[in-house]
Amino acid sequence: MNKIKQKLYEIIFEADTPAGKLFDVVLLIVILVSVVLVMLESVPSIAANNLPTLHKLEWIITGIFTVEYVLRILITKKPVRYIFSFYGIIDFLSVIPTYLSLIFVGSHSLVVIRMLRLIRVFRILKLTRYTSAGQSLRRALWASREKISVFIFLVLILVVIIGTIMYLVEGETHGFKSIPTSIYWAIVTLTTVGYGDISPATALGQFLASIVMILGYAIIAVPTGIVTSELMKPTSKKNTQVCPNCMCETHDDDAIFCKKCGTELNP
Amino acid sequence: MNKIKQKLYEIIFEADTPAGKLFDVVLLIVILVSVVLVMLESVPSIAANNLPTLHKLEWIITGIFTVEYVLRILITKKPVRYIFSFYGIIDFLSVIPTYLSLIFVGSHSLVVIRMLRLIRVFRILKLTRYTSAGQSLRRALWASREKISVFIFLVLILVVIIGTIMYLVEGETHGFKSIPTSIYWAIVTLTTVGYGDISPATALGQFLASIVMILGYAIIAVPTGIVTSELMKPTSKKNTQVCPNCMCETHDDDAIFCKKCGTELNP
Amino acid sequence: MNKIKQKLYEIIFEADTPAGKLFDVVLLIVILVSVVLVMLESVPSIAANNLPTLHKLEWIITGIFTVEYVLRILITKKPVRYIFSFYGIIDFLSVIPTYLSLIFVGSHSLVVIRMLRLIRVFRILKLTRYTSAGQSLRRALWASREKISVFIFLVLILVVIIGTIMYLVEGETHGFKSIPTSIYWAIVTLTTVGYGDISPATALGQFLASIVMILGYAIIAVPTGIVTSELMKPTSKKNTQVCPNCMCETHDDDAIFCKKCGTELNP
Amino acid sequence: MNKIKQKLYEIIFEADTPAGKLFDVVLLIVILVSVVLVMLESVPSIAANNLPTLHKLEWIITGIFTVEYVLRILITKKPVRYIFSFYGIIDFLSVIPTYLSLIFVGSHSLVVIRMLRLIRVFRILKLTRYTSAGQSLRRALWASREKISVFIFLVLILVVIIGTIMYLVEGETHGFKSIPTSIYWAIVTLTTVGYGDISPATALGQFLASIVMILGYAIIAVPTGIVTSELMKPTSKKNTQVCPNCMCETHDDDAIFCKKCGTELNP
Repeated sequence: MNKIKQKLYEIIFEADTPAGKLFDVVLLIVILVSVVLVMLESVPSIAANNLPTLHKLEWIITGIFTVEYVLRILITKKPVRYIFSFYGIIDFLSVIPTYLSLIFVGSHSLVVIRMLRLIRVFRILKLTRYTSAGQSLRRALWASREKISVFIFLVLILVVIIGTIMYLVEGETHGFKSIPTSIYWAIVTLTTVGYGDISPATALGQFLASIVMILGYAIIAVPTGIVTSELMKPTSKKNTQVCPNCMCETHDDDAIFCKKCGTELNP
Repeated sequence: MNKIKQKLYEIIFEADTPAGKLFDVVLLIVILVSVVLVMLESVPSIAANNLPTLHKLEWIITGIFTVEYVLRILITKKPVRYIFSFYGIIDFLSVIPTYLSLIFVGSHSLVVIRMLRLIRVFRILKLTRYTSAGQSLRRALWASREKISVFIFLVLILVVIIGTIMYLVEGETHGFKSIPTSIYWAIVTLTTVGYGDISPATALGQFLASIVMILGYAIIAVPTGIVTSELMKPTSKKNTQVCPNCMCETHDDDAIFCKKCGTELNP
Repeated sequence: MNKIKQKLYEIIFEADTPAGKLFDVVLLIVILVSVVLVMLESVPSIAANNLPTLHKLEWIITGIFTVEYVLRILITKKPVRYIFSFYGIIDFLSVIPTYLSLIFVGSHSLVVIRMLRLIRVFRILKLTRYTSAGQSLRRALWASREKISVFIFLVLILVVIIGTIMYLVEGETHGFKSIPTSIYWAIVTLTTVGYGDISPATALGQFLASIVMILGYAIIAVPTGIVTSELMKPTSKKNTQVCPNCMCETHDDDAIFCKKCGTELNP
Repeated sequence: MNKIKQKLYEIIFEADTPAGKLFDVVLLIVILVSVVLVMLESVPSIAANNLPTLHKLEWIITGIFTVEYVLRILITKKPVRYIFSFYGIIDFLSVIPTYLSLIFVGSHSLVVIRMLRLIRVFRILKLTRYTSAGQSLRRALWASREKISVFIFLVLILVVIIGTIMYLVEGETHGFKSIPTSIYWAIVTLTTVGYGDISPATALGQFLASIVMILGYAIIAVPTGIVTSELMKPTSKKNTQVCPNCMCETHDDDAIFCKKCGTELNP
């Protein structure tokens, strides 16, 4: 019994054996197929004739994913830890919308969350160069999370104030129906999206909007500057040596003696 | 009497005592509540039934802020300096719109300026990592103020000339009603917002607009380059000490012994 | 015979002789003329009267390019290698649409692919400074291909999930006709293009759209950061020579004598 | 006579004397007033009643600038050189539109070109910090002119091909009236402006447009990367010494001997 479990673990959780690799490639295809199915179902001209077939296929795929999810829980040594891990939650969310669709019509479309499983598949398939590229991106974004948070916090304050002023200036007759709608407009403008569903019509409104746009044009520089400077920070040049005498760390790579106590470091 | 004043000062201006911290957290909540109230009031479907309640709540909150503002003036040792300080002015502007609404209908929405008080609250709550992130952003923006000013100055000249040319090319029949409106269009285009409320209809106009867009696409690089290069300026961590024995340079700031030969460095 | 072939090779494939240079300049003009012809033909007011003339000119130009293509195959020593090279394929695609237009009406417009031949013309004309600028751009983009791929892969996952959620929230009545259409909207929004042909009308939809926009505003920083950091990687110009007399390093590549002590360097 | 000329030269061309400074400040104000006049004249509601007054003022200002232009030619020692200098041409263009308006109605609006004179005024007023900021921007843009040119050249090729394909896919019924119009659409999309005056309506068109948008989103990184990397390049570390023996230039700052011939450099 344990041997089968071990074998299944290798197939499902790893990709070092041919069987494990095959499992992941099949998974990848099934995920893509299921997402395409959901898309097709939402297109009226296609749904009209093929709805029963599409539904049948969707239930089959959900069945496969349900079995896989249960297997993962049974096989892993720490099921609770798996269930509440990042990928455990995604695996659960990939399955549940189809069952919920029995109660809430339409909710099954949310199975597109399965797309997130692709991240794991790529990781497992050892596309290492891409994984390392992804990691260096994640590190840069993680390192800049505080600056980005402060930036977004300030943008939100700005947007609320701008939205309120524009609501007073333009008023309901020009589409600025309420302060929340005006704030929505301010975000649309500041981010340079500019739908044009709401746009200022008075001279004063257009003047204020111009200031907001130039502001948005200038402050788009901020997140870019933050991420760029993080991406360019040299990956640490400090080595991991510890002084045998005073336990001081963070020595330069070319250090021969401890900078704190003068003791010779181990080579 | 002085002791109460001292106590109140600690509570209102500082956040080191539990009471001071509580005060700031309550303030934070009241600010957010008051902004939400103003938003809700502007939504017709909500205002229809709840206007009296919303007004009452707003007056209560304004009362709280008024008392706080007066207390701040009474408690601080340099009231004049406080009143004309950045936060003093914001505190005043946070209170006055409600009173003005007795004269000018609608002006009370401007209490959203209270949002700016959130900056102080965060500063006081000692979210130091975020504060330092904010400071490094501010330093970078401050250091690039001259370049940004020159850039915006040149963009404004450009936009006036482009706007005038497009006014002559497209004319009033295609929405370019006047030169100020055309300048507004030029800003909308150059900043890549592109509402589409005004867009060129003649072949020549579309050709000129294309040039403006590609120009805007290229010069968005300028503010980004400015801010990025400021954000990346190294905040030097190496000192200029030279080892008296081996002349080795580039020691860390906290180095006491030379990392190359182990000789003690001059303090 | 071989001598003529050699001569023709010099004219067609190279640009070191006056004849070769002339050939390339003529080619450049013919390419531009043919693209302008295709454009003019598509403008109804111009096509109305001049269609036969335009067609005649187009067939003449296609004839020239066909002869040139055949000549290139005949002259080169490795015809198969040329045919399947990057420029060989472009040369073929520059000719074929006109012939296809005998079967598929309108397909001849695709001769604009000839524009890609301009890249070779510029390369051959030895505009070296521009070529080296182009190469350093290509190197930077090539070096960042993995990070860019990961970035686009994640953006695609994001866009499918956002599109599906907006389809459920806004529904078909507000223009979100199907999930593919909603994904199209998500791309339009995330990239800050913002046509406004589809835009959210419900409060919840506008709230979600605001989040998407701020997200798009923030993540535009990522490709910029990637490319910038690649473009800034130093292409070292210092060589590794060490002066045999004073051990001074960091000499320029063209240095013959040591800049510190005047000793001759080893070649 | 010569003394008056010398005095006038100091006033008009320089700003070191109080009179010269006053002259430039007055000029600055007159330029701004004249631009505001042109704008006001284009607004129908204002022009209706004040057209004669506005015209009178404009002729007075044009008179002032004409006198100034003639004076500049008379005073300077090299009038031809001034006339064909950058600022000489702008001074001429600042005056001529009003006279042309006697022949071509409306052309006088082009006096907004006077705005460009503001650049000189600022330069003369010795706002040195801003001037140096402007210079470092100009240097960065100048240094990146080749890369930017190559980039725009490639974008133009791309945009012509995309425009033609979209013209074939969407056709005239969806607003893609001709290839030039489709190219205009492609530029509007690639630069993320997105007016929405033309937008794809077919599924295939929207799919292709999505690719164009993601492409545009990615390649906006290129000009930004170019400018940023130029702005960050350390301002040249080469000194201006010339070897007294072999006339070789471009020595490092710490060079004591010529790197080419080994001769000692002058300190």
